[in-house]
Amino acid sequence: MKYPEILSNLIEDLKMLPGVGEKTAERYAFSLLEKTKEDRESFITSVKNLDKLRKCSICNYITEDEICSICSDKSRNNKILCVVEDAKTVLLFEKMGTFKGQYHVLNGLISPIDNIRPEDLNIPTLIKRVIDGGHTEVILAIKSTIEGETTSSYIKRLLKDSNVLVTRIANGIPIGAEIDYIDSMTLEMAFENRNELV
Amino acid sequence: MKYPEILSNLIEDLKMLPGVGEKTAERYAFSLLEKTKEDRESFITSVKNLDKLRKCSICNYITEDEICSICSDKSRNNKILCVVEDAKTVLLFEKMGTFKGQYHVLNGLISPIDNIRPEDLNIPTLIKRVIDGGHTEVILAIKSTIEGETTSSYIKRLLKDSNVLVTRIANGIPIGAEIDYIDSMTLEMAFENRNELV
Repeated sequence: MKYPEILSNLIEDLKMLPGVGEKTAERYAFSLLEKTKEDRESFITSVKNLDKLRKCSICNYITEDEICSICSDKSRNNKILCVVEDAKTVLLFEKMGTFKGQYHVLNGLISPIDNIRPEDLNIPTLIKRVIDGGHTEVILAIKSTIEGETTSSYIKRLLKDSNVLVTRIANGIPIGAEIDYIDSMTLEMAFENRNELV
Repeated sequence: MKYPEILSNLIEDLKMLPGVGEKTAERYAFSLLEKTKEDRESFITSVKNLDKLRKCSICNYITEDEICSICSDKSRNNKILCVVEDAKTVLLFEKMGTFKGQYHVLNGLISPIDNIRPEDLNIPTLIKRVIDGGHTEVILAIKSTIEGETTSSYIKRLLKDSNVLVTRIANGIPIGAEIDYIDSMTLEMAFENRNELV
């Protein structure tokens, strides 16, 4: 005895979502089953609409058009470029709202173990963009994992001969966090990057 | 600056899944965006197919036909009925595999607070089924919450005058669980229901 095939197919499909295993997929499937036909149709339409999205031909952020809303925004500073791992981070920064430059989405990080090379990412387009664009600053907003560090130093190296200032966002203690719970690497960085109180 | 509308619509729809908030919905939406068009189509088809499922006219379990595979299985004992809250529990018991009787799915529990009355559930159909069916035993496999207890005693009361034996599945300590971590109500039940070692 197993699920009706319709349900087990849906459960299999739901398991492609990140972090969703058998139990959660079952729960979602039953929940979708309990919804009205209209709710499910709205859901289906939303998923179908994803086909309309593509990557901005300049920065790789998601867009419905050739060029995304950020790249085509003339009011933004096009001399400062923030390099991020994925489109989600762009959104996070935009929610923060203080950065008014432009972005470049790498679509991943260099990882020899997973066989992800710089050419598999949007690194060549980044270098070309910076060299052609006369940017004054490239901010690397990439996490401090082995892959992140590798990617950061690789980009730094390729931009060495250009005049652009390459910076990275600060490591340190999150606001409000208990210092006792912070790992020693982060503490070390926090000491190193200490600021004068003004 | 916000998500492209296509993405924010999908995020809203994903939030109708149980336990899915903004963050998880965002994660799922981006994951769906990264999938191939084919994967998404398979997913859409699976959701759409849910429209084909309905409730068994005898027991309310999910089925593609008028009567579900369990009710139409002649090899099962149709004199023993197991009463459960929802279709998911049926599946759990079927995975266990030892119960060979039939089921009755209530589709919820009595809850005056949420204004769920016996008539809103499949309780009247249960009573009629048992009285007409000449069942020998009705096993209540309902959780021990206030709503569960209310529902169990309500059913017990309605079946008082019939000849059927009404039982409930045992409360006790889960196999492998640390006794220190079990609540006192469960411990009390476990003592009360103790068995002779044989």
